[in-house]
Amino acid sequence: MARIVMKFGGTSVADLDRIRNVAARVKREVEAGHEVAVVVSAMSGVTNQLVAWCQQLSPLHDAREYDAVVATGEQVTSGLMAIALQEIGVEARSWHGWQIPLKTDGAHGKARIDSINGDELIRRMANGQVAVLAGFQGVGPDNRVTTLGRGGSDTSAVALAAALKAERCDIYTDVDGIYTTDPRIVAKARKLAKITYEEMLELASVGAKVLQTRSVELAMKERVRMQVLSSFADNTALGGDLPGSLVVDEDEIVEKELVAGIAYSRDEAKVTVRRVPDRPGIAAAIFGPLAGAGVNVDMIVQNISADGTTDMTFTLGRTDLPRARKTLDDNRAAIGFSEILADPDVAKISVVGVGMRSHSGVASTMFRTLADKGINIQVISTSEIKVSVLIGAEYTELAVRALHTAYGLDAA
Amino acid sequence: MARIVMKFGGTSVADLDRIRNVAARVKREVEAGHEVAVVVSAMSGVTNQLVAWCQQLSPLHDAREYDAVVATGEQVTSGLMAIALQEIGVEARSWHGWQIPLKTDGAHGKARIDSINGDELIRRMANGQVAVLAGFQGVGPDNRVTTLGRGGSDTSAVALAAALKAERCDIYTDVDGIYTTDPRIVAKARKLAKITYEEMLELASVGAKVLQTRSVELAMKERVRMQVLSSFADNTALGGDLPGSLVVDEDEIVEKELVAGIAYSRDEAKVTVRRVPDRPGIAAAIFGPLAGAGVNVDMIVQNISADGTTDMTFTLGRTDLPRARKTLDDNRAAIGFSEILADPDVAKISVVGVGMRSHSGVASTMFRTLADKGINIQVISTSEIKVSVLIGAEYTELAVRALHTAYGLDAA
Repeated sequence: MARIVMKFGGTSVADLDRIRNVAARVKREVEAGHEVAVVVSAMSGVTNQLVAWCQQLSPLHDAREYDAVVATGEQVTSGLMAIALQEIGVEARSWHGWQIPLKTDGAHGKARIDSINGDELIRRMANGQVAVLAGFQGVGPDNRVTTLGRGGSDTSAVALAAALKAERCDIYTDVDGIYTTDPRIVAKARKLAKITYEEMLELASVGAKVLQTRSVELAMKERVRMQVLSSFADNTALGGDLPGSLVVDEDEIVEKELVAGIAYSRDEAKVTVRRVPDRPGIAAAIFGPLAGAGVNVDMIVQNISADGTTDMTFTLGRTDLPRARKTLDDNRAAIGFSEILADPDVAKISVVGVGMRSHSGVASTMFRTLADKGINIQVISTSEIKVSVLIGAEYTELAVRALHTAYGLDAA
Repeated sequence: MARIVMKFGGTSVADLDRIRNVAARVKREVEAGHEVAVVVSAMSGVTNQLVAWCQQLSPLHDAREYDAVVATGEQVTSGLMAIALQEIGVEARSWHGWQIPLKTDGAHGKARIDSINGDELIRRMANGQVAVLAGFQGVGPDNRVTTLGRGGSDTSAVALAAALKAERCDIYTDVDGIYTTDPRIVAKARKLAKITYEEMLELASVGAKVLQTRSVELAMKERVRMQVLSSFADNTALGGDLPGSLVVDEDEIVEKELVAGIAYSRDEAKVTVRRVPDRPGIAAAIFGPLAGAGVNVDMIVQNISADGTTDMTFTLGRTDLPRARKTLDDNRAAIGFSEILADPDVAKISVVGVGMRSHSGVASTMFRTLADKGINIQVISTSEIKVSVLIGAEYTELAVRALHTAYGLDAA
């Protein structure tokens, strides 16, 4: 017997039939003797409609009113889910953020969770009642409804699991787990049974969109074990083992893989600021204004100096390119560059794994593999558990497949 | 300068354009120097969709979950209305029932209002902020969302007007006021400038569907002046007078009309229980079981006794007819009747007016008028301010038109 949190996204509750399917799945966990809390998103399409109405009435609408409107989507689903559970004999009740209360700060539209009082829920779950929480929302210091921002229901679920001291937080999605790389590119991609929080964060931030980064950060901080699994496949047929991918603490993984996965991102652009003076403060002169303009810079490389000048290269989200260029031009006098080179046709390929902390040679394997395929590396960046390179966008699939094989990740 | 409550029904806020129109109308009242609270219904069609989802998931759904789901319709409108008001420069904020709080009893799905704390709203309205209340809902003793039942937004508005000590509660609908009779039947029907609560209640309960009976009862109890007016017509063009129909205390009406209006209802059926023993307790033997079965009996007539037996005739809602017949059959031994005659093709015509308290001859005018048209009266029932008769349903229009003329109600 365990206490678990089950979270279902918008496609999993898109219509009444799917809500009934989810209810049946919850019932199986209840019948297995578990205490269950369910977190639901809005039925797919509903949030977009509500957001569109707010925007059509006023492009610069009051975020407090936006929250009050948009949060109703999850409220509807939570009530319907409670009804669907009761209909099949499972005791259940819905909870809105303000009823728990799930308290947040006052940052309407992107609020952060301050506290969850789980006492009443724990008491009721011990008596066999399933708690159905409207995800994505809480109540702010001003007693008004707040929302946690897009994807916030994952964060709701993890925070609830922490407050309830749940054994596990199961995130049901339209994929059935976390893979060694994108299965659409590499047919031999393998589903990972377990992955560490750190690896998941690196994978999430470089393009694997299974889990919201924020929810993984919170899970790592609160030591909540997350599981990613499909709400459409019938996982119960797989036998006793947990059917999805577990995101857990490193201690839980006995046999650490050297490399957990290969991620890629094609939404990158590369900028080189040519022949800037090689003097203290030049990096601040470039990246200060960019940060001020809200441009999120990723990899940064500074070459050694030649004739008293140097080249500064960095990557950024492709959509930020025009803003970055304008910001640099506006600050040309202060920076003193000769020209700006921009290349939007780049991709970032990342090899991620906690095993590389204790093993050398991961980076050199990457470089040799790419060289063997004739792929030129434009920029290199490393962290403790990740090696990223920037390459021409047209080599993305080739690079990912070659690396997947080189690190022994291919399924048998 | 006055404090007013403006209530808009579902058709008045059916889409974003109509919400903008309502916002513009609210702005005119604000610019006229009034303190304004707005009560909104769900966008038309939304409530029906939410109710249908609950019913499709479970015909016998939990009323608490039903309330949580259905109340979101008004919450969406209140947020959108606040945004629309802000967009045209009117300070506004939305209020859900639990935020005010508007406290109700725990009768989910048909809750009654216990109390409204208007202090914060009054403070903010005095500072120029328009309060936009999600109608139809409150919060129950268990801290869960309650709804007031169909048409509950009228009741929300009147209760709010009482709590705010508002000068007037304006109910915007798709008609522009209260008429002497149904304008679809009598082209010369006149809009009433003023009508008393008592008259409105009699008209509402006999088929004029402009206002919810409950809201008029509450308005009478709390002495809230109600005004019925159209949300589509531009009433401001009509000059200084209030453009709709006012529902007020009798004291406010100096020149009382003898008859305020003619109402009709075609949803009636007539039942005669033939040859029951003329003994004490026979009425209780008939109407006790009917009440127990939930049959709402309206007019009751008992003829004088002939041979120790009598005939008992009564009217009821036509949809209750099968249940009434079965109940009487089940109790035949205890009642001891010879047969049951049922006629579903009847209509009730009512003449309503506080003036008839002090004037005789109203009933006889009615009887003579109907006789002149060859219409047979089947049952007669009178109250202090109303005379009702039951006639064959096919004479409905003829009777209403003739009476409208006979009481001098025709427009010039």
